[in-house]
Amino acid sequence: MGRFGMEQQVSSKEKRVETGIDGLDSLLQGGYPHGSVTLVAGTPGTGKTIVCFHYIKAGITNKEKCLFLTSDERISNLIQQAKKFGFDFDTAVKNGLLTFMFLDLEKHTIHKQMEEEIRLGAYSRVVLDSLTPLSELPVWVVNRGSEVIPPESTVATTPLPLDSVQATRMHVRRILRILEQDTCTALVTSEISEGSRNLSRDSVSEFLVDGILVLDVDPSMDRRKLAIRKMRGTKHTLKPRDIEITSDHGIRIV
Amino acid sequence: MGRFGMEQQVSSKEKRVETGIDGLDSLLQGGYPHGSVTLVAGTPGTGKTIVCFHYIKAGITNKEKCLFLTSDERISNLIQQAKKFGFDFDTAVKNGLLTFMFLDLEKHTIHKQMEEEIRLGAYSRVVLDSLTPLSELPVWVVNRGSEVIPPESTVATTPLPLDSVQATRMHVRRILRILEQDTCTALVTSEISEGSRNLSRDSVSEFLVDGILVLDVDPSMDRRKLAIRKMRGTKHTLKPRDIEITSDHGIRIV
Amino acid sequence: MGRFGMEQQVSSKEKRVETGIDGLDSLLQGGYPHGSVTLVAGTPGTGKTIVCFHYIKAGITNKEKCLFLTSDERISNLIQQAKKFGFDFDTAVKNGLLTFMFLDLEKHTIHKQMEEEIRLGAYSRVVLDSLTPLSELPVWVVNRGSEVIPPESTVATTPLPLDSVQATRMHVRRILRILEQDTCTALVTSEISEGSRNLSRDSVSEFLVDGILVLDVDPSMDRRKLAIRKMRGTKHTLKPRDIEITSDHGIRIV
Amino acid sequence: MGRFGMEQQVSSKEKRVETGIDGLDSLLQGGYPHGSVTLVAGTPGTGKTIVCFHYIKAGITNKEKCLFLTSDERISNLIQQAKKFGFDFDTAVKNGLLTFMFLDLEKHTIHKQMEEEIRLGAYSRVVLDSLTPLSELPVWVVNRGSEVIPPESTVATTPLPLDSVQATRMHVRRILRILEQDTCTALVTSEISEGSRNLSRDSVSEFLVDGILVLDVDPSMDRRKLAIRKMRGTKHTLKPRDIEITSDHGIRIV
Amino acid sequence: MGRFGMEQQVSSKEKRVETGIDGLDSLLQGGYPHGSVTLVAGTPGTGKTIVCFHYIKAGITNKEKCLFLTSDERISNLIQQAKKFGFDFDTAVKNGLLTFMFLDLEKHTIHKQMEEEIRLGAYSRVVLDSLTPLSELPVWVVNRGSEVIPPESTVATTPLPLDSVQATRMHVRRILRILEQDTCTALVTSEISEGSRNLSRDSVSEFLVDGILVLDVDPSMDRRKLAIRKMRGTKHTLKPRDIEITSDHGIRIV
Amino acid sequence: MGRFGMEQQVSSKEKRVETGIDGLDSLLQGGYPHGSVTLVAGTPGTGKTIVCFHYIKAGITNKEKCLFLTSDERISNLIQQAKKFGFDFDTAVKNGLLTFMFLDLEKHTIHKQMEEEIRLGAYSRVVLDSLTPLSELPVWVVNRGSEVIPPESTVATTPLPLDSVQATRMHVRRILRILEQDTCTALVTSEISEGSRNLSRDSVSEFLVDGILVLDVDPSMDRRKLAIRKMRGTKHTLKPRDIEITSDHGIRIV
Repeated sequence: MGRFGMEQQVSSKEKRVETGIDGLDSLLQGGYPHGSVTLVAGTPGTGKTIVCFHYIKAGITNKEKCLFLTSDERISNLIQQAKKFGFDFDTAVKNGLLTFMFLDLEKHTIHKQMEEEIRLGAYSRVVLDSLTPLSELPVWVVNRGSEVIPPESTVATTPLPLDSVQATRMHVRRILRILEQDTCTALVTSEISEGSRNLSRDSVSEFLVDGILVLDVDPSMDRRKLAIRKMRGTKHTLKPRDIEITSDHGIRIV
Repeated sequence: MGRFGMEQQVSSKEKRVETGIDGLDSLLQGGYPHGSVTLVAGTPGTGKTIVCFHYIKAGITNKEKCLFLTSDERISNLIQQAKKFGFDFDTAVKNGLLTFMFLDLEKHTIHKQMEEEIRLGAYSRVVLDSLTPLSELPVWVVNRGSEVIPPESTVATTPLPLDSVQATRMHVRRILRILEQDTCTALVTSEISEGSRNLSRDSVSEFLVDGILVLDVDPSMDRRKLAIRKMRGTKHTLKPRDIEITSDHGIRIV
Repeated sequence: MGRFGMEQQVSSKEKRVETGIDGLDSLLQGGYPHGSVTLVAGTPGTGKTIVCFHYIKAGITNKEKCLFLTSDERISNLIQQAKKFGFDFDTAVKNGLLTFMFLDLEKHTIHKQMEEEIRLGAYSRVVLDSLTPLSELPVWVVNRGSEVIPPESTVATTPLPLDSVQATRMHVRRILRILEQDTCTALVTSEISEGSRNLSRDSVSEFLVDGILVLDVDPSMDRRKLAIRKMRGTKHTLKPRDIEITSDHGIRIV
Repeated sequence: MGRFGMEQQVSSKEKRVETGIDGLDSLLQGGYPHGSVTLVAGTPGTGKTIVCFHYIKAGITNKEKCLFLTSDERISNLIQQAKKFGFDFDTAVKNGLLTFMFLDLEKHTIHKQMEEEIRLGAYSRVVLDSLTPLSELPVWVVNRGSEVIPPESTVATTPLPLDSVQATRMHVRRILRILEQDTCTALVTSEISEGSRNLSRDSVSEFLVDGILVLDVDPSMDRRKLAIRKMRGTKHTLKPRDIEITSDHGIRIV
Repeated sequence: MGRFGMEQQVSSKEKRVETGIDGLDSLLQGGYPHGSVTLVAGTPGTGKTIVCFHYIKAGITNKEKCLFLTSDERISNLIQQAKKFGFDFDTAVKNGLLTFMFLDLEKHTIHKQMEEEIRLGAYSRVVLDSLTPLSELPVWVVNRGSEVIPPESTVATTPLPLDSVQATRMHVRRILRILEQDTCTALVTSEISEGSRNLSRDSVSEFLVDGILVLDVDPSMDRRKLAIRKMRGTKHTLKPRDIEITSDHGIRIV
Repeated sequence: MGRFGMEQQVSSKEKRVETGIDGLDSLLQGGYPHGSVTLVAGTPGTGKTIVCFHYIKAGITNKEKCLFLTSDERISNLIQQAKKFGFDFDTAVKNGLLTFMFLDLEKHTIHKQMEEEIRLGAYSRVVLDSLTPLSELPVWVVNRGSEVIPPESTVATTPLPLDSVQATRMHVRRILRILEQDTCTALVTSEISEGSRNLSRDSVSEFLVDGILVLDVDPSMDRRKLAIRKMRGTKHTLKPRDIEITSDHGIRIV
């Protein structure tokens, strides 16, 4: 039994999607919950993209259809970086198992593009690396004809400040709604500024996702860590675990 | 006797509403004060929604009419999540004991909808999960013809900044006034940003509610905690208590 | 003698108004200075309103005329809460000793209403619970034709930013001037955000009042504290004192 | 000799103005430097106004002409407060030795009034209690036709933001210039927000004055302190000194 | 083997560019990854420019074409400073191996100039010292006709705030895209404000570059440090290493 | 040898300008580097102006032409203050060795004035006390016709926010460029707000100057300190050194 017990029952009830990372599946009762969106957050150089590589690699091995949405890095760079960890994404792309899609932040059609690709592509696994520049895109809102609190005189209508918390929340909700397609399980990465205690750059998405992995480094001890901060319907430890990143195994829980 | 003594008398004076959480009622002299609004605040993944599930579950067991207002999560997801803790909300919905209502933040009629539903529905228990996106909605105020302090020249009238503390306060007051219907006892959840010391995202609602439960995690000790920070008319400890979240019992004071 | 010595003489010179709180009068050389305005500041759930209840209760017992101005809580709720501490305010209202006045923040006439009520009512004791939402109301200022510093060209006139420190200061001064009527001694409550080190929400009123009581909680030690931070013309300790809140006695210095 | 040595010579060179506070003159080589402006800064209730009372009292005793400029407190209240420390300001006012002047912040002529009063009054000692609300008054600046850095196209001229650091600096400089009249030695008080590490509310005036006294309290030790942070041309310790405030002596270095 | 093992294989796969700093190449598996952009970040006086000098010096020695883009310092000053460390850049300029280019921030053509110089110059090594003033240049954006979230009424279009995070991100991406030419390997310096925990002044570029070197000083221990915070495809320690700056060797890992 | 070794050679290569402070020249390999600009930064009352007095005094002794630019203090006050440390600036002014120039912040011609005075005056030593109010002067910028990032529709042009980091940087660069005349070696003072960790008020100039001296006080230990944080081309310790300020010697390294 134990905390969250009845593992057999739970795992029979809840489909799991393997993380592709040595030792992480067993910390998550088998993997990410099917249909969930998990935030992979961390300061610079903590391995956020590598967590996504493992996830895609595991999908390819299972012959699942995978989508990798990138806003920060060119596709060719990503394929080359993955190759260094022994992940052959070139072949997967040729086989039609893996699709890369570059989100051009200067095009205002990226939401529609994302949405159609995910809806029509019937992907099992989707990665969005990273959510941060998308969450910062300005939101154009209409002035709603919302009723006024004091009953007197004229109504002042002002558009939402573009970089307000409200605009960010609207934006993050919209993106997560696209990713919450029934057929897919998604990872999204988010920047954490060094020294910030928020769990994402936008400080909103950590409240809206189903799971949160936090990656961190401790330079003075030369250590890297991974913590499961939240995972809906999953029994997990909160304790940060030491990880190792090598060109043999990529990320490994030690 | 003891602090706040005369428990018998107090409980005879003050009707209590069970929390549905093992060990919490006894910390609250029987439950939440009847007619009160309690804030359930916490950082991501601390179990705010699960506290609400217990509250609804206890209502259903008592054959009380319950309303669950959700702004962040789809209704089907909530029902599915509750099921993992053994709470059968599907049947309650069919029996008419439980009503779910999705608050579409992009509709400017949500306040009116909430108000009518609560007024007409005669609910004993209401949950609002979560207050945060509602408290961030812009407020459109009229320019009041308020008198001017220095007696000279022309009057400068400027609308209230949309994301000012004043706007937030007006908004939170308005929502709490809706929930303070005589017939119901309400829980509202609020996000706390990691590292913030405020007791709600808006930093205003903690001063306007009747009670505050704070949920927290201590990752390095792998511990979860619940503290009663305030509960009007109730003798309670301020000390945080360790809690456990399992799929057998949900939340339990340990 | 001792610090601030000559108690007999001082108390003969300075009329004192009892606080109604067990053990507090002796810490204040007999009570609040007559004609003073004291700020009662604290984080959520620290007992600010209960300090006001004691003050009103003591006034009623002395057959003094009392006014309770409330902006946050409905009058019926206040009367009900006071009853739990054994304070029968209903009878006092009927006897004409106590007047409750609800300040509707959406009416721009509240200052005028307050002023007239206090001027005409000849109250001995006035409570304003709380100052915070009033201090946040926008101030409409005229553009003054003030002279310009550099002697060249055209003058730029811009209205005062509504939520600026200047606007807050003007507002707080205005409210305190209303309360500083010779005939009354006043308490005003102010919110302190958890983790803030200011002595009021507005960070201005603590410099303009005659006295400051700070209420605080120490959750890990399950302790409540009251400190006298300032009291004009009064010898007092700065050390926080432990307090107890019970339904028998309300607040008591322990 | 020692640090700043040659006291005899120095004091012969530099005229000193007694502080009126027991034990402070000897810490300042005889008193405030003649013609200087000293900032008296502190959090609420630390005794800033009492330091000014002593300064005025010493002037009256010496038959020097004194001016007390007040923006926060009514004159009658100040006279009454001073009386509690045994300072009879009423008589001094009647004798023409002491002038009180209330600065009405809502009048845009206060600078001119101050200036004329100080210039024509030939005061030896001037107190401004407090500088803070004056430093927050908006400054109306002209758009200067200042030359443009990049040599192309049209010039954008925008007025100075009213609550910017620049505006504050202009304002504080203007007030200090008024006080720097050759004939007088001045004290100005400034608020320090609890928990702030600045030496004034405006964070500018501490760089422009000749001397700084910082008043502080340590509530947990029930102690009051005074530190000399800066005093032009004066040998002084930087160490905070314990002080006592009693109705016998007012402030005393212990 | 070890972490990131298989050095032989890796180095055969990945071309490295020597740093020119004694002891740093061996910490980076041979040098900066070919084609990468590395951020050299540090507080004032930590040696950012000297790291660039070494990099250019190593290029000259290898007969590689080098470009030094400077926005903060005049070219003649840079050449003179380099000479103090024994680096003869004058000769390199005459030989056509090294090109200095001053980025005049007041010219709006600097991006185009940079881009053309890098594209046409076929440089192996590029230095940008420093990125910070460039990242702060305002961005002029068009109002995009982006679709609106709530389906009602009129669209509010507002330009991007000039100093918003979004503008900075757009700017930094644009500059990095210019530097990510296949033929060159680049260093860019960035200011870190004393006491800030960000890894760059703009808090964005550290997420977009391939590598990060952080330079720091510990005044109380009189020590200088260099840490490798991130380096794509490279096995490296996170531990800060002590460095020495001398006129003999310039920077040296000790 | 040692760090930065080869002192003889270095000092032969690099001309040094004496600081005039006992013990400081030897910490700086002979003095400030010829032609450099050094920032003298410190919280209030730490002796920034006295460091400048020593610098001017040493110049006068050497029969070098000196310029003292003051924005905060009247010239007569400066001369009087210097006299207390035994520095006879009056005679130097009469001899034509020392020129004082008051920068009237309300005149928009001060840059041009500074520039011409420095260019025509052929000064060896220039002091600017202080940089801070100058760095805060608004910058009027033209709207540049800079090209637009997204290729669609209309361009939004907005002037630079007057108190933005960009405006400050433009301003500080402009002033430093004036001071970087080949013929002179300059000191500029900058305010550090108490508790700030920046090395200047503007947080930009510390990255643009050649050297930084930081002055500090430790009130609880009654100690004053001077640290060399940066000095181009100079071997120096980073360790703060205790200093003494006396009327005999002025500042002295102890």
